[in-house]
Amino acid sequence: MAVTSARGMRDFLPRDKERRDGVLAVIAETYLRHGFEPIETPALEDLERLHSGLGGDNEKLSFQVHKRGLTAEDIAQASTPEELSDLGLRFDLTVPLARFYASNHGALPPVFRSFHVGPVWRAERPQKGRYRQFVQCDIDIVGQSEILAEVETMLAAADVLDRLGVAGWSMRVNDRRLLLELLASAGINKDHHNTALITLDKLDKIGAEGVLQELKERLPEGFSTEVLTPVLSGVTPGFDPEAIAAVMGGSLAALDAATQLCSWVGVVEDIRGQGEFVWDPTLVRGMGYYTGSIMEATHPNLGVSLGGGGRYDGMIGRFLGTEVPAVGFSLGFERLVEILPTDSVASPTRVALVYEAGSDVSHVMKLKMQLVSTGHTVRLVAGTKNRRALYERLVVDGFSRAAEVDDSHLDAEHLPWRELDA
Amino acid sequence: MAVTSARGMRDFLPRDKERRDGVLAVIAETYLRHGFEPIETPALEDLERLHSGLGGDNEKLSFQVHKRGLTAEDIAQASTPEELSDLGLRFDLTVPLARFYASNHGALPPVFRSFHVGPVWRAERPQKGRYRQFVQCDIDIVGQSEILAEVETMLAAADVLDRLGVAGWSMRVNDRRLLLELLASAGINKDHHNTALITLDKLDKIGAEGVLQELKERLPEGFSTEVLTPVLSGVTPGFDPEAIAAVMGGSLAALDAATQLCSWVGVVEDIRGQGEFVWDPTLVRGMGYYTGSIMEATHPNLGVSLGGGGRYDGMIGRFLGTEVPAVGFSLGFERLVEILPTDSVASPTRVALVYEAGSDVSHVMKLKMQLVSTGHTVRLVAGTKNRRALYERLVVDGFSRAAEVDDSHLDAEHLPWRELDA
Repeated sequence: MAVTSARGMRDFLPRDKERRDGVLAVIAETYLRHGFEPIETPALEDLERLHSGLGGDNEKLSFQVHKRGLTAEDIAQASTPEELSDLGLRFDLTVPLARFYASNHGALPPVFRSFHVGPVWRAERPQKGRYRQFVQCDIDIVGQSEILAEVETMLAAADVLDRLGVAGWSMRVNDRRLLLELLASAGINKDHHNTALITLDKLDKIGAEGVLQELKERLPEGFSTEVLTPVLSGVTPGFDPEAIAAVMGGSLAALDAATQLCSWVGVVEDIRGQGEFVWDPTLVRGMGYYTGSIMEATHPNLGVSLGGGGRYDGMIGRFLGTEVPAVGFSLGFERLVEILPTDSVASPTRVALVYEAGSDVSHVMKLKMQLVSTGHTVRLVAGTKNRRALYERLVVDGFSRAAEVDDSHLDAEHLPWRELDA
Repeated sequence: MAVTSARGMRDFLPRDKERRDGVLAVIAETYLRHGFEPIETPALEDLERLHSGLGGDNEKLSFQVHKRGLTAEDIAQASTPEELSDLGLRFDLTVPLARFYASNHGALPPVFRSFHVGPVWRAERPQKGRYRQFVQCDIDIVGQSEILAEVETMLAAADVLDRLGVAGWSMRVNDRRLLLELLASAGINKDHHNTALITLDKLDKIGAEGVLQELKERLPEGFSTEVLTPVLSGVTPGFDPEAIAAVMGGSLAALDAATQLCSWVGVVEDIRGQGEFVWDPTLVRGMGYYTGSIMEATHPNLGVSLGGGGRYDGMIGRFLGTEVPAVGFSLGFERLVEILPTDSVASPTRVALVYEAGSDVSHVMKLKMQLVSTGHTVRLVAGTKNRRALYERLVVDGFSRAAEVDDSHLDAEHLPWRELDA
């Protein structure tokens, strides 16, 4: 029987691991320069916090950990898994950030820009491209109610995409308040807003006709489909507050939200130029915690989003007991790694020393140490009869030069280097 | 009620996180140069592998994860926690490496130098300095039966300590075969070797008298205490094979093992100089899987070891079904972070821009982006009445310069910089 990693989880071999670490290094360096500060939280959180309603549907996917020292009697007396469990593996980095902020806010600056990277775990049914452990990469600005938070977040995320060499991405943006104004003006009662938003979110999949059909099935009669028509037909007025407000119900509150949206996008475009940001009135970003701006990065080579986020003023403070404004954005790390070109890692500083079995160990090691101390990455390889296979292996592993050494080579500066061709 | 991280686990605030990441970067860069290749394995492994007897006592400390979708009926029918669990969090990186090697050996070079870093979890009773999640940092050479593996491992680990600026460490070394020869020559039967080694390992704590006393209580009569006396009295013959063999029972097998020990230490000392490596005949390194060389780094400022390892030829192949020689060393990352000096992270490239509320967002952001693009780390701070508190906060957070900006500042090259004194 084959020995494999646990179902739905991955090993990373050296070349893949180097590539992932390389992408992560660019992301980290960029976010740090933009003033986001690195934090780390433990993989396990108290189950009660993970299941406190902030994680939406993901709560159901959490891996739960046995209480320690469970006895047969404990098990006999329990009727639900929760009675046997007190900890869970985090399913995202937002719930842990909210808990972290509540635990440590006294030691943090008034406006805290958090950069939070790490694995998360979801007990999803394993399938192509879905894994049960994957890396999330979040930035959040906590304590800033003004649009500066949206602007800083978007400029930092865009800069990461630039530095990684991702071309052709675009950022769909909207505002949750505009959506609520639209629904209200169509005569849809507050109690049905979530149902309506879930349906609206399916526009990509089921089309305008499908959305209208589903709304009619799910909502009580009496709402106006006319009000929804421009939105469903893919109206694109650009970033003009009055035009946006007109599409989204036309209320003063809609004009307010549209003005704010155009204002922060305007600053970003003022700095980066136009063409990357697109107003999408049907962008919903799931249910739940978003209270204002929402954004989602897309890429033509990907069927799924490259990252998303928004303003969620009510949530970070939930564990703290006071409201704290916040804007967050999560880059889809696994998807970024997927779409980036796979560069060869071969480099002139990555060299191999090929020695004969029975060579003087001290001699070979001295050559290695000389090369290490001059900045090389050095692999020792015992010579084998099949030299061709040996050199091919080195090319696969990213080595660009090799030298066959024996006791006559005393100085690493004068070795018989052989260039390895890929 | 205070909101805290889960019991026995830690949050890392930005300054601590930066420090840890900095130490890890030095470790990684050094090991990579020495030819060790980075791998990653998932945090969760099949429980059956974690509990296959390779983890010693640590197996008992594993966090076990509920099977998904447990029902009341599943719980009613179970009598042990294991029946309700199929996955566990890894308690070390050695069992996952053995599993990784078995899963992926076909894609790895014949001699594989693995560099494996990540968190591990142990359900220990939380106490000062003991955490339930901590980082391990392992290197292993798999597939090399010769002393080159010991030499490469020790030179790489010593280089890491050098580059981190750790001074005054020493490496205690021994060989498990010498210990077994010693016990055999004292007339202690194979069945009692483990008991005898556990007692010998307590020499530091209970002294020579204590060890002899405990041996007499635990072993059957008839073994020779005279043979053990030189070892217990702290004999130090240096790295002389015949002298070492004489102390450790005097057999030909002991001479063989002593010759090998002196040979690899000799190569390391030939390159690094003498004085760091010390033969310690009472070094045992726990039970279990070690089959030859064992080593343990100590530091005068630490009561516990700074890292340890050894040769374990029988274990890596356990999941594969064939024997594969291996030497491993694990640096104690948490302890390294503890003993390293806490440098200030203040740097001339870490700057703050202080703006007045109501300033033009676009203007402030343009200044920030100019500084980011010229390699600065930039934090925006809204001006508050209490400027002193504001600047003190920036110093604490590692900022060395700040500028108060308004709409008159158009160019980031000519800002009214103020040096912040720590």
